[in-house]
Amino acid sequence: MAAGLAAETALSEEAANGPPNVPEWMKAPGADTGAQPYGTPSPFEKHVVKNVSKSLKQYTSASVRTPLQELDGIITPNGLFYERHHGGVPEIDPAQHRLMIHGLVERPLILTMEEIRRFPSESHVYFLECSGNPDFKAIHAGKTASDLVGLLSCAEWTGVRLKTVLEEAGLKPGAKWVVAEGADSAGMTRSIPIEKCLDDALLVYSQNGERLRPQQGYPLRVFLPGFEGNMSVKWLRRLNVTDEPAYSREETAKYTDLMPDGTARQFTFVMEAKSIITRPSGTQRVERGFNEITGIAWSGRGKITRVEVSVDDGKSWQDAGLQAPVLGKALTRFRLPWTWNGEPALIQSRATDETGYVQPTFEALTKARGMNSFYHDNAVIPWRIAASGEVSNGYPKA
Amino acid sequence: MAAGLAAETALSEEAANGPPNVPEWMKAPGADTGAQPYGTPSPFEKHVVKNVSKSLKQYTSASVRTPLQELDGIITPNGLFYERHHGGVPEIDPAQHRLMIHGLVERPLILTMEEIRRFPSESHVYFLECSGNPDFKAIHAGKTASDLVGLLSCAEWTGVRLKTVLEEAGLKPGAKWVVAEGADSAGMTRSIPIEKCLDDALLVYSQNGERLRPQQGYPLRVFLPGFEGNMSVKWLRRLNVTDEPAYSREETAKYTDLMPDGTARQFTFVMEAKSIITRPSGTQRVERGFNEITGIAWSGRGKITRVEVSVDDGKSWQDAGLQAPVLGKALTRFRLPWTWNGEPALIQSRATDETGYVQPTFEALTKARGMNSFYHDNAVIPWRIAASGEVSNGYPKA
Repeated sequence: MAAGLAAETALSEEAANGPPNVPEWMKAPGADTGAQPYGTPSPFEKHVVKNVSKSLKQYTSASVRTPLQELDGIITPNGLFYERHHGGVPEIDPAQHRLMIHGLVERPLILTMEEIRRFPSESHVYFLECSGNPDFKAIHAGKTASDLVGLLSCAEWTGVRLKTVLEEAGLKPGAKWVVAEGADSAGMTRSIPIEKCLDDALLVYSQNGERLRPQQGYPLRVFLPGFEGNMSVKWLRRLNVTDEPAYSREETAKYTDLMPDGTARQFTFVMEAKSIITRPSGTQRVERGFNEITGIAWSGRGKITRVEVSVDDGKSWQDAGLQAPVLGKALTRFRLPWTWNGEPALIQSRATDETGYVQPTFEALTKARGMNSFYHDNAVIPWRIAASGEVSNGYPKA
Repeated sequence: MAAGLAAETALSEEAANGPPNVPEWMKAPGADTGAQPYGTPSPFEKHVVKNVSKSLKQYTSASVRTPLQELDGIITPNGLFYERHHGGVPEIDPAQHRLMIHGLVERPLILTMEEIRRFPSESHVYFLECSGNPDFKAIHAGKTASDLVGLLSCAEWTGVRLKTVLEEAGLKPGAKWVVAEGADSAGMTRSIPIEKCLDDALLVYSQNGERLRPQQGYPLRVFLPGFEGNMSVKWLRRLNVTDEPAYSREETAKYTDLMPDGTARQFTFVMEAKSIITRPSGTQRVERGFNEITGIAWSGRGKITRVEVSVDDGKSWQDAGLQAPVLGKALTRFRLPWTWNGEPALIQSRATDETGYVQPTFEALTKARGMNSFYHDNAVIPWRIAASGEVSNGYPKA
């Protein structure tokens, strides 16, 4: 190892002379096999939980974040998947749940979960991200990677191609949108352009092998790879095929982007390329010598083709290694070896996707979009490393 | 959909006239966001747990299985990962845990978990399988896919290349084996050939994003992609570099294969190509009309290149579709559309890997290996479908 980690290791006398001390846990049998029919993490990992904001005012329309700075690889374990609900989490009996498909179709359908599971299935690893991740003001205030972009997770999803089910119903001429409705108390409703419905959209019932968690839409959600998370309607009960959007609350009062000239962007579906360094990141501490800089990058437009890392406040950039396989519309893990010399530093990453789009600086983004937007902030995120090794948000204080 | 599933669906009058009835769970707010700091599955999925044998005699040296027939895709959620322990599950404090590397090395090392996490890391999706999965007799008796090959799971693993750490210690001439020892009460010990140690072997600390579960070796295990699971020593505390194997209990009295001529194969590390249909599979029920046949295939030698499925007792075989991306030494999900006409049938799958090796029939396997082997049974697994639609083990009764 070029960086000589072991050279810095205080090697005990024990190492040369014999085995290390026998720990307590080798002296008596451990816990029973299968003691937990459904397993949980080690008690020593009890601090690794969803990130609940201390200022959370109420709980049925709220969000909690994935602790990205504690995770490795690209898969988010289901227990730590982020949550964003608008009417709380319904407890749905799958035997009673139905999906209705109606509107501009030849043959309206009401399907049971068993019927949906009989259609041909597909599995794909995709990220899911809330479009307010973070909002334009919170980006200056968040302390950890989770505070900043923890409304982001990634899983292997299994379900039916939405196209397959729509073809079964038979689209009528003039079908331009599909209005999806959730079976939560908010009746969450979003309009999906027909092109997406006939492309890679899925009706999903499983996540990382097992059935969807209640917080992710059990027993059924629509899943729109690369689109803002709000549109992947959970607890899906209805698809109304229409010739125009529903103009629901979530695409008029919310989930639009107020521009500097006072107009609002609407139907801004795609999550643009983005990245963040997760280690070292805010509230962590760097030791002198060798460190691996690692993080995640993603794009709603396809594959990540490049992640550059700067360790000198943006003066120079180096290409990070991308962990194979690089999958479209999934998280991509990047890594760069780095030796820290103990001087204060500003480190940051920027992603490029297969369309050639490059993640912008906050300055460039706000020059175009102003500061009245809430959603779709994909600016570069810097971390400041102090001489003490402490890592903190690299944005100027708001 | 060519198979016309919807044509078989009893379409309610409701569908044409308006939305389906509003279910109870839409009439009041649901559960709070983040009510579970670490989430769990829906109460309606409480039957999806690890498969604990009813004949389990004792619990510290025992195994429990992944419910493969309940799962989709290729990732096994951490809560359902199979377990095989020889001295129970130790509860290890990662702050106290050490890894010692000694023997034929220039510089013996004792590393803390923090030090191990500072090395350059990698993430890979790999399967892990017990070599007694199933044994040669149990294959006739198991009822479900889990009963037969549930000592098999697949995850995204993150850790350090073992080669990196060994190079840090500096191998001396004559280093041919590395003897790995676990910190469980069994002091599980296996010998690993140096070629594997310098190839794709990992020191793993994370699984599906989060830290290893206690049952999978928290805080550290060695991971040998494609090798029998027993060798990927959990709770890893010691690597002794030697010029010959340890000839430990687990590579002499156990984990050897008794051949028909009375000799025993030893050091049979690689898990050969294998597959199983998980839906429809034993104890499930098939409905007439369209069904998707789906299952998993894997090989310890690399990528799966082909899975063939027969629905007519082996008279003819069709190529199943392989879900992309197909990853080396990982599970590969295969699927084949099938219309069941209601007549009794025997269905089975056989896998081919990138070396050209084809999964054998039980007859061919036992002709070469006899019936005194216990480990490394990778024979084709047939399922019998009765006229009633009930699915059962397709092997002749033992």
